[in-house]
Amino acid sequence: MRAQEMRAVVLLSGGLDSATCLYWAKSKGWRTTALCVRYGQRHAQEARSARALARKAGADFLEVSLRLPWLKASSLCDPRRRLPDSPLERIGQGAIPSTYVPGRNTLFAALGLSLADAMGARAVLIGANALDSSGYPDCRADFFGALRRAAKLGTRSGQEGAGIAILTPLIGLDKAAIVRLASRLKVPLGLTWSCYRGGREPCGRCDSCKLRAKGFQGAGLHDPLIAAGV
Amino acid sequence: MRAQEMRAVVLLSGGLDSATCLYWAKSKGWRTTALCVRYGQRHAQEARSARALARKAGADFLEVSLRLPWLKASSLCDPRRRLPDSPLERIGQGAIPSTYVPGRNTLFAALGLSLADAMGARAVLIGANALDSSGYPDCRADFFGALRRAAKLGTRSGQEGAGIAILTPLIGLDKAAIVRLASRLKVPLGLTWSCYRGGREPCGRCDSCKLRAKGFQGAGLHDPLIAAGV
Repeated sequence: MRAQEMRAVVLLSGGLDSATCLYWAKSKGWRTTALCVRYGQRHAQEARSARALARKAGADFLEVSLRLPWLKASSLCDPRRRLPDSPLERIGQGAIPSTYVPGRNTLFAALGLSLADAMGARAVLIGANALDSSGYPDCRADFFGALRRAAKLGTRSGQEGAGIAILTPLIGLDKAAIVRLASRLKVPLGLTWSCYRGGREPCGRCDSCKLRAKGFQGAGLHDPLIAAGV
Repeated sequence: MRAQEMRAVVLLSGGLDSATCLYWAKSKGWRTTALCVRYGQRHAQEARSARALARKAGADFLEVSLRLPWLKASSLCDPRRRLPDSPLERIGQGAIPSTYVPGRNTLFAALGLSLADAMGARAVLIGANALDSSGYPDCRADFFGALRRAAKLGTRSGQEGAGIAILTPLIGLDKAAIVRLASRLKVPLGLTWSCYRGGREPCGRCDSCKLRAKGFQGAGLHDPLIAAGV
């Protein structure tokens, strides 16, 4: 297999899941290009985390900015809005929460596919998972199944080349299993950022902080972000 | 049906096909938001055409700019590259041409879906067609079938609301039929722009000019861009 054929694009937000995904790709022998997308999220420090993680992992790093004014419809892109503060057991159980960013993973996958098709990469990796998630529709396995078909039919590589796989290695894992995998893969967890709020320290109250804490607790590990008081 | 439910997002490049698509939507009673995407295309004047067409059609108009450095892989985004100059009968028949923009319609559809999901629109319209096209894989009916499933599964509207239809009203039409439809719908064809080159006048030699000329000829109509010497 030619070297270029072993290249993968990894969508890297800078959070726990995408960082684990990057290190998983690395462990499987993929040469990785990390793609970080700024879309006006209030927790812009996750992009700094993404850059640091890519450097640490020895991945190429690309950052793009989307200026899509309508994404203010999400409380994740409008600092004036209240973030949900649900009890842990209710997260992901009810209606889609206000933090849902319309079409985010469709956009991310499209960007990843476009880049992979342009550079001749063989895979796009996305750290989506649904078991312990906030309940976003674009994080579920059947959604990625539909995207795989679009990737096969709608790219040069899918029609004339070897195709572009859309890999979601975390899709069947709960948060504790993701933390355990991250630990095994030696992901520098202290570099990741999960909190939805744009503060200096994780707030501990938003859905993302709660799911992260559940993961570390279930794995029986300390979160270095908390231990270090960061 | 509430007014908002009759809103559609129309991907409007400013070319003949998307302009016809916009007027088709209007003729069906949709309230339209035209979405124009700049992605570094060398024929940037199509964006000016898009704005003028939207104004004329009474559509809301939104323009977004994607800065994706890897799109330079396409000769349509790199003015230093040669544009193909194929005989008409060979256009769309061989390998995917250098003007293919990696993942363009996946990106356009993702942007349209994101906007539609944010604003509560019921449809995304794309003027894609395959019969007289340049041979891009992301212009074919089965590709849009895959996207429809992704739209159903991966959006808030698809999961909790009425869903977002992806409509491709021109998909089965050849270029002459598109010109006839445009003429019937009173599309201001003099405002559209098809030429891939960024000149002041259509070059008449690029694949897009040739397909357009074939359409007008087949429909027995004069192209106002040529007649007016624009």
